[in-house]
This record gives sequence, structure tokens and C-alpha cells, in this order.
Amino acid sequence: MTYHAPLREINFILEDLCNLSGLSALDGFEDFTPETIEAILLEAGKFANDVLAPLNHQGDVDGLGFKDGKVTMPRGWKEAYTSLVEAGWNSPAAEPEFGGMGLPVLVNTCIQELFNGANISFQLCPLLTQGAIEALAAYADPALQAVYLEKMVSGEWAGTMNLTEPQAGSDLSQVRSKAVPKDDHYLISGQKIFITYGEHDMVDNIVHLVLARLPDAPEGTKGISLFVVPKFLPDAEGQPGVANDLRCVSIEHKLGIHASPTCTMAYGDNEGAIGYLVGEPNRGLQYMFAMMNNARLNVGLQGIGVAEHAFQTAAYYASERKQGAVTNGTSPAPIIQHPDVKRMLGVMKAQTEGARILALRAALSIDMAERAPDADIRARHQRRVDLLIPVVKAWSTEMAVSVASQAVQVHGGMGYVEETGVAQFYRDAKITTIYEGTTGIQAMDLVGRKILRDQGLAVSEIVSDIRASANALADEGEGALDVNLMRRSAHEAADLIEKSCEWLLAAQVTDAALPLAAAQSVMDVFGMSLSAWCLIDSAAAASRHLAVGDGDAAFWRYRISLAECFIHHIFPMAQARLTTMRNGSYSVIGLEPDMLAQAS
Amino acid sequence: MTYHAPLREINFILEDLCNLSGLSALDGFEDFTPETIEAILLEAGKFANDVLAPLNHQGDVDGLGFKDGKVTMPRGWKEAYTSLVEAGWNSPAAEPEFGGMGLPVLVNTCIQELFNGANISFQLCPLLTQGAIEALAAYADPALQAVYLEKMVSGEWAGTMNLTEPQAGSDLSQVRSKAVPKDDHYLISGQKIFITYGEHDMVDNIVHLVLARLPDAPEGTKGISLFVVPKFLPDAEGQPGVANDLRCVSIEHKLGIHASPTCTMAYGDNEGAIGYLVGEPNRGLQYMFAMMNNARLNVGLQGIGVAEHAFQTAAYYASERKQGAVTNGTSPAPIIQHPDVKRMLGVMKAQTEGARILALRAALSIDMAERAPDADIRARHQRRVDLLIPVVKAWSTEMAVSVASQAVQVHGGMGYVEETGVAQFYRDAKITTIYEGTTGIQAMDLVGRKILRDQGLAVSEIVSDIRASANALADEGEGALDVNLMRRSAHEAADLIEKSCEWLLAAQVTDAALPLAAAQSVMDVFGMSLSAWCLIDSAAAASRHLAVGDGDAAFWRYRISLAECFIHHIFPMAQARLTTMRNGSYSVIGLEPDMLAQAS
Repeated sequence: MTYHAPLREINFILEDLCNLSGLSALDGFEDFTPETIEAILLEAGKFANDVLAPLNHQGDVDGLGFKDGKVTMPRGWKEAYTSLVEAGWNSPAAEPEFGGMGLPVLVNTCIQELFNGANISFQLCPLLTQGAIEALAAYADPALQAVYLEKMVSGEWAGTMNLTEPQAGSDLSQVRSKAVPKDDHYLISGQKIFITYGEHDMVDNIVHLVLARLPDAPEGTKGISLFVVPKFLPDAEGQPGVANDLRCVSIEHKLGIHASPTCTMAYGDNEGAIGYLVGEPNRGLQYMFAMMNNARLNVGLQGIGVAEHAFQTAAYYASERKQGAVTNGTSPAPIIQHPDVKRMLGVMKAQTEGARILALRAALSIDMAERAPDADIRARHQRRVDLLIPVVKAWSTEMAVSVASQAVQVHGGMGYVEETGVAQFYRDAKITTIYEGTTGIQAMDLVGRKILRDQGLAVSEIVSDIRASANALADEGEGALDVNLMRRSAHEAADLIEKSCEWLLAAQVTDAALPLAAAQSVMDVFGMSLSAWCLIDSAAAASRHLAVGDGDAAFWRYRISLAECFIHHIFPMAQARLTTMRNGSYSVIGLEPDMLAQAS
Repeated sequence: MTYHAPLREINFILEDLCNLSGLSALDGFEDFTPETIEAILLEAGKFANDVLAPLNHQGDVDGLGFKDGKVTMPRGWKEAYTSLVEAGWNSPAAEPEFGGMGLPVLVNTCIQELFNGANISFQLCPLLTQGAIEALAAYADPALQAVYLEKMVSGEWAGTMNLTEPQAGSDLSQVRSKAVPKDDHYLISGQKIFITYGEHDMVDNIVHLVLARLPDAPEGTKGISLFVVPKFLPDAEGQPGVANDLRCVSIEHKLGIHASPTCTMAYGDNEGAIGYLVGEPNRGLQYMFAMMNNARLNVGLQGIGVAEHAFQTAAYYASERKQGAVTNGTSPAPIIQHPDVKRMLGVMKAQTEGARILALRAALSIDMAERAPDADIRARHQRRVDLLIPVVKAWSTEMAVSVASQAVQVHGGMGYVEETGVAQFYRDAKITTIYEGTTGIQAMDLVGRKILRDQGLAVSEIVSDIRASANALADEGEGALDVNLMRRSAHEAADLIEKSCEWLLAAQVTDAALPLAAAQSVMDVFGMSLSAWCLIDSAAAASRHLAVGDGDAAFWRYRISLAECFIHHIFPMAQARLTTMRNGSYSVIGLEPDMLAQAS
């Protein structure tokens, strides 16, 4: 069993829940008709299935070579990367002026889910390059862009992001790397850790984006600048020339994503690494924050992709493995017929689908925030994006860990054996809850910057949309859909979100630490309530297809089942989390760090 | 930072919640006064801290050697095993007539938690031997016992359990291994998989207990017999003699417990492996079931032990690592001062403590079921044991996976790096939810055999005890304890358990598949409600100590905080699970296996 790109699900979501036909009305998207997009995704799906997925497990087993500062990728990876470049999949959303396809974020989002689902370790390379491209396209001057962007968009060169230092992880105010001006450039020195694809053998050059401080920079977050520091300095023809003063000192031995090199990079051990300032001095962190929504969306997609792959693997195993008797069935029966296994699989699939719909809606809002004709609508979508991104990031990735854990569970003892392959998802998924801001960081972002800062404006807008979904249901009466359940649940989702927002607004007045103590509960309320909303909309759309006898009735009924599964198995916990927020936040404040840290 | 045996917690639980002083009143336990037990645990704690814990991470890194059918243990493991044998820790609960200490199960349970917490891969060897000893002590004839038991109790020889075959995992009715009578013995043939410590170099002989079928045996579970099949046939002096016809074919490459050999064993590839029948023919599975309570309790303890170790590791890291500012604090502050990190640690510790109290109460009931003077009380405790064991097994181990995952999370990016060591807990913990019956199997056992079979009798007894705890609280009014919260929560725990039982009794009449679909929800209701009860009792006891100014006030207040933490952060989900049970079970029944299994 290998990965099958879930195109049927994705096409349904795009068409029925993301207004795909409206996309081509946006400025610059005229060519992206629904037919074109479906054709693009079909090809992307084939690439994911046929090129990336087959390398996933082998890459995990082979791992990486590291010798004399050089990283060797697993067997077949360089060839797959070359295919990716040739097919134009490296950075499909980049602007055509730099050689990209200029795909809508919505469509690129689908592609990123497929590629990450097939092989997260591989896709990290294009993802980091895409982030670097975005930064350079937005902030670098045209001269820098001319040297780097085209080669990075094609994938001939790769890009990286160098933020973390040993003492500066979630807290980037502590960055100490230095940049000293010299002639037309800067000399960069310092150590960076956890640099994904900081070194590898799939490309001719690697373009490092590095955060560092100028000599006169203020302390803290306002004194950090962004630099381009290439592995090889481009020569007059723009080809990789002299080696820069930087090297990969070591690679990490990690829990998962074994085929993705996580590098410790040393800059300027000798004369200083030559770097070029991106944009203005001291605005590096601000630029990074501007990249953050796309980066976090992409990590959320990694979660969704891995969850989908883990689910498929478990569902396949469960339909092959025979153990035990089922009521009124043969013995031994395929374990997929056992109620508890069905439960696990149904909940896994429902969670994955809910997170997917939410992520695609966030992606659509990124396009709308950029290109909708009306300024108010653009602003509204930007607020929506800002609100949803931490939820997509945190909820999708925590969901992925849970789904991967359940996928192992479905396999029983076989799941614990690495050869089976499913344990890899359990290991790989865990990184997604950590990098690009841990789940805790996302929760604090949601509560502090996205709910409290605008006093609940973005929240009130999404609550209106959820109530609109609920009210639209009132007019439908198809047989297969339990309209009352769906309507009641949608209103409950809106209520829960509203109540958590109200509590937060009041709590911050009492004690500034309370919203922080409550942050994870609020995140859970949002994740579950918004997923429920998405799945309710999905069930309603499926029910409309059913009513007109459109296509495969079993597929539409399955959509409805998944919504019910989520409402009954996951959504009740949202109410519990609201209770935790209200009462538990005080008990967190009351916990004594000294007691927690004390050895028995 | 290494492991610290949580003796302060354990001694408190034993004395205040497990009636330790009453234990020595039981027949055969006269010597085990509280002082003696405390001294024994102090020594066990030292052994865990000083001998076992230091080998845990290195064993994970080194892993196992395997060549020509021989397993080589990691550096230092054989020496540690020799120390274990010399100190008499191999099987401390075994009867003195076979060389054991005859420790109460309650005390042995504490030791097993400590040893597993320090090093689960190591402790699996004594645990499996203990299981084999228990089986031989209960069912083998005296001649067999004379040959094997003393050497196994001391640890000179180790024991294993050979149940699983490729086609027979959770469903042992499909066992195909054969036993053909010949002279005074049997010739055993067949392949067994997932045999923990099936082969290693720490002992002179390994005593395999093997399930196999006699030629005339009925099909299914009633035709399986149990055999002793030693690696080396004991000679006339009882020393390891001729090699038996069995071998380790391969060892598994696993997600975790890397230093515990998981073997595929081939029996009788040549002339047939010589085996001796244990007890009567065709009763092998019945004998295994009789061992099951202790085996499952021990796996639950592994979960608790790993959770404790993971918690300690995370708490230590969080008190050392500085990132970001806290309200009214220094910047950067130790992350343990950040509310969200405190929340994670508090919830981790509270869950661990709740599971520990429940496990120790179950262990006490094992002793009481065996030795209480009154037959009715013995029977009541046996019902209690039977009811609690699946909960201790499933709840403690799922809790361990969650706690280990959070421990990685507290470490951020450092947690994902294997050198840090915390990722090992995330990998190791996962096996505990699988072996000795997966979580799903435990849930079905709870619902089918432990709730429905006796029509809720054992449930009603524990509900009475929970209400008694609630009512006892009514008479206390200490300042530090929120008596109303505790009393209300205890009654709610009782209500939830009662309601789930009532629903199950009604549901089974409607559809035999419904209780199975609901099983995991019921398990969660039980796990959370019983843990809440245990922690409420613990908080009440702590509050009594506080009231009389006894000992360390901070420690007692910490107990109370943990109970509150659990009640606010975990317990609200029990109500959600009841809702899931009532509504979600129908949606599970409605899921179509064909749709779940269908590739997109």
C-alpha cells in the first residue's frame, strides 16, 4: 500500500466549499479556471503518488550521510528533486516574472498538502525555498532579486531560513549573530542551529537567509536584520563561484524526518561570510513575521498530509488483517469490521477532513486578502487569515500526532515494528507541532494577537459566518442529513467561540497571565468548533449532491457520516475545554514552579 | 538530569490511601510493617536511580547486536542484571519457598513502577520472568517446579511468554503451533513472533512458556495447551545441558524499547523442541488469562513509570531553559514560569499521580482478594481487581503517550533531537498501549467482561466507595481545600460511571455491537472519573496533614493543586466522553468499512 493523493476530497472541497469558480474572477487568476486547476492537481497527485511517496520510507531507513561538512541525501532523492525541478513543481505559486506559475495560494496549498503527505522530509526542501523566495520577492532590491530569484524559483538553487541560535529559539530577541558592513556587503558571523536543508547535494547552490545584528543595532527584536548569504558567491555570469565562509558543522540525529538534514551552520569562522542586506536594516524580524502566515499554513498542511497518509495506511491494513469475530460476520473478520477499529478510522478521517477544509478556507482568504476588488473585503479576509493561521498550524499538527498514534494503534504489534512504515508517521508528525512556533506559541498568538488585540473583531466575523451556515441549513430538509443536529452543532460552535472570546476579554483585565494560562484551551475550542463548522458545511453540500442524484451516493453519504462522527466524537470536548478555560486557568496560575521542578 | 524515584509520592499514597499499616495484618504479611516496606522501597529507589536509569538512554542508542541467532545486550546491561540478581530484585513477590521475598503485590507494584520508570527496556526481562514464574508456581506439577522455579526466581534463568503467531495476535484462537507427545515430553514445533527477551546473553538459560496445540485438540481457544520449553535442557544436576531445538530467527527493529530484544522464535525446525506440559491439556489459554491481571497491571505501571520519568525530564529542562518574558518577571525567564509550560507540567504530573494511585489501589485489592480473612471481602476485592485492571492498563498507558508527547513539547526543538533523551519516552511509551492487549482490547474487556457480565455489580461497589469519599469530604473544612469543588467532582465522577453503566446495560439489548462501539468512550469515562476520585482522596489526605501542621506544607499544597489541575483540565472531558458514548456509538455503527478503506 502506498499513498494515494486524496484528489476526490480536495476537488470537492475546492468546488463546493471554496468557491473555485469565483477564483478566476480575481485579478491575475484569469487562467485558473476550475478545469485548469483540476488538471494541475491531477498531475500534482501523480507526482506525489509516483515520485515522492515511494521514496518516503526508504529515505527514513537510509537517512543522511554526513562527512567533511557535506550532506549526502538518500538514494534516489537527487533524481526525484531533478524531476521536481523539471516538472516545475518547486515553487508553483511564485510570480511568472521570476519563472513561477503564479498559482493561487489556494491551489498551491493543495499541492503542498499532497507533496507533504507523500513525503514530508523531501518537501521540506521546496517549502524552505518557497519561504526564501517569498522574502526576497517582497523585500530584496531588484539587483539582489535578479541574481537569485529565478534560480530559486526553478529549484536550481535552494533556499533556507536561519533564525534559531542555541540561546534564541522561540525568543528571537536573543539573536547574537553579527553582521559588519564592508564595501557593498556585510561580513556575517555566528552559529545557527536547526537549519532545515542547510546543506545537501541536490542543488548547485544554497541561498541562506540569515538573521543577524548590525554593530549599532538596538537590543532585542528591533535590532535584527535579514541577509542573503549564499553557499557559493555567484560569479559575473551568475553561476556558483567562490565558496563563502560558511559550513555545516553537524547534522542532528532526530526522532523523525530522518531524510531532512537539520544542520548546525557556522558563519564566518575565518574572514567572515559575505552577505547582502535584504530590505532595510533592523527590520529582519518584521520581514520574517510577514512570511509567517504562509510558513505556518504550510506546516499545518504537513500535519494534514501526514495524517491523510497515516489514515490511508491504517485503513488499508485494517481491511487486510483478519482477527476475531464480529457480530453477524465471518471469523476471523477483517479488523476494519470491528466497531472499535471503525471508530478509530472514522475519527481519524473526520479530523483530517475538518482540518483540511479549514486550511483551504484560510488559503482562499490569503488570495482574497491580496486580490479581492473591494478594500473592505480584502481587509476582512486578512483578518480572517490572521485569525485562522495559528489554528490551522496548531490544530492540524496536534491532530496529525493523534491520528498517527491511532494509525500505529490500528496496526497493533505490527505498528511498532519500523519495517511496517506506520511508525514513521508517528515520529515525523511530531516535528510539525514544534517548528515554525510550537503549539504553545500558536495558542499565545491566537489569544494575544488575534483575539485580544482587535477586541474580538475577527472572531465576531467568523461567528457570523458560522451562524449563516447554521441558518442556511434550516432551509434544507434532505433525508440523509440530520438537519437538526447539524444546525444545533453549528450554533453551538459559534456559541463556544463567542464565549471563549468574551471570557478572554474580561480575564485580561483581571490578570494579564490568565489569557496565557487559558491559551491552549481556547486553541482547542477554536480547533474543534471551526472543524465542526467546516464539516457541517461539507455535509450540507454533500446532502445537496445526494438530493439531486449527482455522482456517487456512497461518497456523499460518507461525507455526512464523517461530519456526524466529528460532532459526536470530537466536538463534545470543545465544551469541556471551555470549562477548562474558565476554571483551569486559575489553577495553572496557582501552580508553584518550584514544586513542579523539585525532584522527589 | 537523571531519574529520581518518586518515593515521597509513593510513600504518601501507600500510607494515606492504601492502608499500609493494615497490610501486615494479612496472613503471611506479618513481617511487612510500614517501616520495613519504606526501607525496601528506599533500596529499590536507589537501585532504580543508580543502576537502571543510567543505562536507559545509552541502551536506546546502542541497541542490540544480533548474529547467528545470538542477541548481544548493550554495554553494561549484563552487569546491571547481575546486580539485580544479587540484590534479590528479580522477582521480589515470589514465594519464599522458591527463594522469593514473598512481598505483597502492593509493594512489588511500587518496585515495578520504579524499575520500569528508570529503564523500561531492562525491566521487561524480570517482568516476563515474573509472569512465567507465576504460571509455573500456579499450574506446573511439583517436579517441573523443582527443576525451574528457584533458578527463575533468583534470576539465574529468565522466562518468556510465547503466545503470538503471525496470524494469531489479539485473536489467540488461531494459534497453530503443534505439540506431539513423545515419551515423558512433547515435541513442539511452530513459529512465535514478538517474543520479548526470547534470546539474550544475560542468563545461562531461558525458560520459554509456549502455547501450542495437541494433535487431538479441539479448534479455537479450547484446544490450546501450555508448555515449558527451555533453551538448554537441564541435565541431571539441574544445570543447562544440551541445546533444545529452538532458535531466535530474527529480532525486530522497533519504534522504541530498542534495548529489549523482540524475537521471532522457531521451534522444532529439526527433530522438534522438547517441551513439558504445564498443568492439564487444552487449558493453556485459561492459565494465561489467570496471569493476565498481574501482567496488565505491570504494563500499566510501565506507563506510569515512563510518564514520571518524562515529566521529571521536562520539569528539569523547563527550570533550566530561559526564553521570553513573563508577567512581572525577569527576561529571559526560565520557561517553567510561563503559564502554558506550567499548565503542561501540572497536567502531566496530575495525570501521572492519578494513574499511580489507581494502580496502587488495584494492587492492594489483589493482595486483599488473596488474603483478606473474610470470603465476602475477598470476593469483593477480586471483583474490584477485575474491574480496575483494564482501566489501569489502558488509561495509564494512553496517559503515558500523552505525557511523553507533552514532555517533548516542553523541550521545543531540543525535544526532537534524540541526544536530548526525551524523545525516547515518546517512542518507548507507545508500546505500552499495544502489548498485553491493545487499548481497544482493554476497552472491550472492561465493557464486556467487567461491566456487562456481572450486570454492573462491581461498578456499583466502586460507585459506593466514590460517594463515600465525597461524603467524607463534607465533614472537613480545611482552608486550603476547596471542599465544595472536591465533593461535587467526586459525586460527578460517581454519576458518570453510573450513567455509562446504565447506558451499556440498555444498549446491549438494542444492538450487541453498540457496547463495542462505545467501549473506548466508556474506558475514558472510567479512566478520568476514577483518577479524579483518587486525586480527590489524595487532596483530602493532604489537607488533613496541612491542618495538623504535619511535615512540608508546600508538598501538601502541591497535592491539592494537582487534584484541582486534574479536575479542571482533564475531568471535564469525562462528561464529553459520556456524550460521545450516547450519540457517537450509533455513528460508528453507521460507518461503511468499504468507504473507509477506499483509496481516493
